[in-house]
Amino acid sequence: MIEYVDRLLQGDRRSAAKIITLIENDGADKPEVMRRIYPNTGKAYVLGITGSPGAGKSSLVDEITKQIRAENFKVGIIAVDPTSPFSGGALLGDRIRMQEHALDRGVFIRSMGTRGSLGGLASATKDVVKVLDAYGCDIVIIETVGVGQSELDIMHYADTTLVVLTPGAGDHIQTIKAGIMEIADIFVINKADLGGTEKMITDIEGMLDLSPLLKGWRPPVMATSTLDGKNISNLWETIKKHRRHMIDTGTYREAAEKRLRLEVTEIIQRKLMEIIEKDLLSNGKMSSLTEKLVNREIDPYAAAGDLLKKFLP
Amino acid sequence: MIEYVDRLLQGDRRSAAKIITLIENDGADKPEVMRRIYPNTGKAYVLGITGSPGAGKSSLVDEITKQIRAENFKVGIIAVDPTSPFSGGALLGDRIRMQEHALDRGVFIRSMGTRGSLGGLASATKDVVKVLDAYGCDIVIIETVGVGQSELDIMHYADTTLVVLTPGAGDHIQTIKAGIMEIADIFVINKADLGGTEKMITDIEGMLDLSPLLKGWRPPVMATSTLDGKNISNLWETIKKHRRHMIDTGTYREAAEKRLRLEVTEIIQRKLMEIIEKDLLSNGKMSSLTEKLVNREIDPYAAAGDLLKKFLP
Repeated sequence: MIEYVDRLLQGDRRSAAKIITLIENDGADKPEVMRRIYPNTGKAYVLGITGSPGAGKSSLVDEITKQIRAENFKVGIIAVDPTSPFSGGALLGDRIRMQEHALDRGVFIRSMGTRGSLGGLASATKDVVKVLDAYGCDIVIIETVGVGQSELDIMHYADTTLVVLTPGAGDHIQTIKAGIMEIADIFVINKADLGGTEKMITDIEGMLDLSPLLKGWRPPVMATSTLDGKNISNLWETIKKHRRHMIDTGTYREAAEKRLRLEVTEIIQRKLMEIIEKDLLSNGKMSSLTEKLVNREIDPYAAAGDLLKKFLP
Repeated sequence: MIEYVDRLLQGDRRSAAKIITLIENDGADKPEVMRRIYPNTGKAYVLGITGSPGAGKSSLVDEITKQIRAENFKVGIIAVDPTSPFSGGALLGDRIRMQEHALDRGVFIRSMGTRGSLGGLASATKDVVKVLDAYGCDIVIIETVGVGQSELDIMHYADTTLVVLTPGAGDHIQTIKAGIMEIADIFVINKADLGGTEKMITDIEGMLDLSPLLKGWRPPVMATSTLDGKNISNLWETIKKHRRHMIDTGTYREAAEKRLRLEVTEIIQRKLMEIIEKDLLSNGKMSSLTEKLVNREIDPYAAAGDLLKKFLP
């Protein structure tokens, strides 16, 4: 697999796809491949787009992609569907609409389900961002299907997060999950051609009046329509404005540092677990412990303590 | 906190509530409290109820609770809302309907959001099941709000899982998440008074025709209505039939063993991370590594390897 890294760095599309598959399958070469990719990362800006299913996120991604391409930036799109833990194949239907971009060599599109992501979907997504970064994408868009916990976890990797809502789709401000509201850097009321847009804007602004500002940024609320392209170029300008704000206030650097520390911690955790699991399986200690656990002769905390003794000084 | 354990084992309601709060806050006494509770667990049968929001799960839980109480079993109900990572206070509105049971000393009801659950919602739920088990509940019902990944994780703790669907609520068989379909031991088409029930039953049966049987159990598809109580007692009989099947085929024991092994592994993982994080924070090694990481002088895998050297022989 190592040979694909050089080609990736030269902008080879097929190598990018191959390496992403390696990440999804958590292949043996992954650490080495990611190690070689790493020095070439840190340049791409990551845009996260989340919101309820049916809010028109995919169409919005299409339109934003057009804006980005008009400025000649290279863009990577990762469409993530964490809702299906057993069968993968996320979103491919949706992506058919993206065919016009599929012919554009400046756009790289990848769908990710849970099936292939043995190391966890959020972790895999984070590595795919790095691949697209090294591949030369100036902007990486992460689009999620819904608004569950996994989606929120994934949005931690975004520099700017768009929360897309639709009037009349049950997206009443009272019922929207608190977590979603708090990760928004920009609110987008999409399908603004539908009734109820003004009410929704008022509701969100009212909520923002009561929220503390994060680093001096008050999330703008923008009404867009992908039908007639309403406000799409404004939205793109607002995204750039948020990016500028992040850099100027030092938030961009802080967030990058925090993500890197988290990443190191996760790698350590995974490594330790691999070692422990291998050890447990090899010496059969676990099966005698299981017997005792089932019979309530020992409790899980004591069993864990027993097994841990080997690893702690 | 230890003194509450004895009272819990004597069936003291307030002590149960206190201990659950300790679990949610991941208090220092938690391991010791859980250790003392553990020998008194393993008796309760866990019933998981999941499905789309609005499928009438809470009303169904009410009705099943009546059936359980008619047989004089003690029941614990855990209502879990993993959708809100920031603000807790799950489902309390819904629970107002449960007031008739609230006066019944044989019913213990608890709502859980994500806020208090520092150790993770699935892990906290699992410990709360043990508390209610030791408290003397014969049956513990876990009800989730939606059908996301966290809900699926939580359903791994259930012995019997009901997937509740509603005709006409967008719960078309083609669009239902694959993961949800595969965890169902019993399908419940609730609000069977609505049109489309027959079609939905046919669709699910058709899907089941194509699925391999798990340990010889084909999930029954039952139409219920909480309005007129249609089929509720049948549903309760079917739940008991599944329980019998689990025990007779050894699946019950296998699942219990698997859960216990998983639990020990999770405790080890958490313990190791606590130690590592404490070590990282205390020696300042992480902050010099962060600097190198940001400057791309070292990659996350190498940084993790560096830090790990201290812990591995």
